[in-house]
Amino acid sequence: MTYCLGILLRDGLLLASDSRTNAGIDQIATVSKLTVFETPGERVITVLSAGNLATTQAVIAWLKQSYGSGDQSRDLTLSLTLFDAAQKVGDTLRDVIAREAEFVQPHGDPSASFIIGGQIAGEDPRLFQIYSAGNFMEASERTPFLQIGETKYGKPILDRLLGSDTSPSEAAKLTLLSFDATMRSNLSVGPPFDLMIYDRDSFTSARQYCFNIENDYLKALREQYSAGLQDLVKGLPEPPL
Amino acid sequence: MTYCLGILLRDGLLLASDSRTNAGIDQIATVSKLTVFETPGERVITVLSAGNLATTQAVIAWLKQSYGSGDQSRDLTLSLTLFDAAQKVGDTLRDVIAREAEFVQPHGDPSASFIIGGQIAGEDPRLFQIYSAGNFMEASERTPFLQIGETKYGKPILDRLLGSDTSPSEAAKLTLLSFDATMRSNLSVGPPFDLMIYDRDSFTSARQYCFNIENDYLKALREQYSAGLQDLVKGLPEPPL
Repeated sequence: MTYCLGILLRDGLLLASDSRTNAGIDQIATVSKLTVFETPGERVITVLSAGNLATTQAVIAWLKQSYGSGDQSRDLTLSLTLFDAAQKVGDTLRDVIAREAEFVQPHGDPSASFIIGGQIAGEDPRLFQIYSAGNFMEASERTPFLQIGETKYGKPILDRLLGSDTSPSEAAKLTLLSFDATMRSNLSVGPPFDLMIYDRDSFTSARQYCFNIENDYLKALREQYSAGLQDLVKGLPEPPL
Repeated sequence: MTYCLGILLRDGLLLASDSRTNAGIDQIATVSKLTVFETPGERVITVLSAGNLATTQAVIAWLKQSYGSGDQSRDLTLSLTLFDAAQKVGDTLRDVIAREAEFVQPHGDPSASFIIGGQIAGEDPRLFQIYSAGNFMEASERTPFLQIGETKYGKPILDRLLGSDTSPSEAAKLTLLSFDATMRSNLSVGPPFDLMIYDRDSFTSARQYCFNIENDYLKALREQYSAGLQDLVKGLPEPPL
C-alpha cells in the first residue's frame, strides 16, 4: 500500500508520500513515490504515485524520457497549463494499462493513481488527482487536500485542522501527523516520508525533505503529540454514565 | 454504512454503534444496531450488526424468536459459553445467507457481520467478531477492541489511547471521539450513537445510553476536543524546513 497527500495552500503546495512498497507482507522495499519534472524559473510539476509499482514506474519513466523531447502527447515541457499536464499523465496511464492489463490481471491488479501538483508560468499553482481510469479532478480552496492510497486513517486530523490558509510549516506538521496515524494503523505504509514544499511563484523544487523514522524532529513530534493527546483526552469532561 | 465498536476491558465490556442506515444517499433511516439478549443474573449477550439491513434484521429476528424456545441450534439461553453463542449467531447468519443470497445478489451485497459481547455465568466477559463467512475471532488483552463497518477513520485514536486497563468511563469518552472522527469523514455514519457499558459480573444490561447530536455532553466533548487538538498541534515544535 501507499499513502500520498497533496495540499493546495494559499502560499503554494505541499506534496508528500511514504516510501514503502510491498507485494505481500514478505516482499517489502523502499521506493520514492515523488517525482519532480522541472524547468527552473518556468515550470515545476510534481507527481505522486500509488498502485501497481510496475505501472507507476512505467508511467513515470515514459514521462521522464519524453521531457523536452518534443513528443506532443508525452512531453510535459509542452503543456501550457497544469490541466494539460494532468491530461498527459492520465493519457500515459491509459497507454500503459492498455499495454499491460491483460497480462497482469491474472496475477493481480495493474491499476494506479496519481496526484499531480505544481505551477506553470502564467497561472497559479494547481493540484489534481488522477484516477485509475485516467480521468482527473482538481483541488480548490474548499477541497484543499487530495489523497491516494491508504487514505482513511490519516484523514480525520486533516478534516479537523487543515485549511487552504494554513501556513506551509503548519501544513507540514499536520502532514507528518497524518502519516504517523496511517503508519500506526497500517503496516504497509512506512517511512521514510518524502515531503516537498512548493512556494508560490518560486518555480523551483528546492524545498524537498526526507523524514526517516530516526529523524529527531519526527521523533519529537510523534512523542509530544502522543503525550499531548493523552493529556487532552484525560482533561475532557467525564461522560454522564 | 455503519460503525460498530466492541471493547474488552478489565472491568467489563463497552459496546457501541451508530444508527444510520442507507441504501444510496437518498434513502437514509435511523435504526438500532445494538440488540441485547438477557436473562438477568445469568447471561447478557449483546449483538452489534453491520452490513445488509435485511440480512442483519433476519438474523436478529430469528435469534429473538428462538430465545428461550429450546431450539438447539438457535436458542441463546442454551449456550454454555459465549463461544457457543457466537457459533449460533454465525450459523444463523449462514442460514440466512443460504436462503437469501441468490435472490439478493443481482441487486446488491447480501453480506453482514457482527460483534458479540457479553458474559454467561461461569466464565469471564468475552468479545467476538463474526465475519460475513460466519466464522469468528475473539478479542484479548492484547487486541482489546474489535470494529465492524466503517472502521478506519475512528481507529487511530483507539490505537493511541485505548488499552484493556482503560476505565469504562475513559473508554466511553474515547468511543465517542472515535465515532465523531468517523462521522466527520463519512456521511453514511451518523448519530444517535448507542452505547452500552457492561460491568463484569453484573449480569444486567441496565447501563445503556443514547447520544443524540443535540446531547449536551456530546456537544461539549466535540467542541473541547477540537479546540484542544488545535492548541496541541499549534504548540508542537515547528518542522526544520
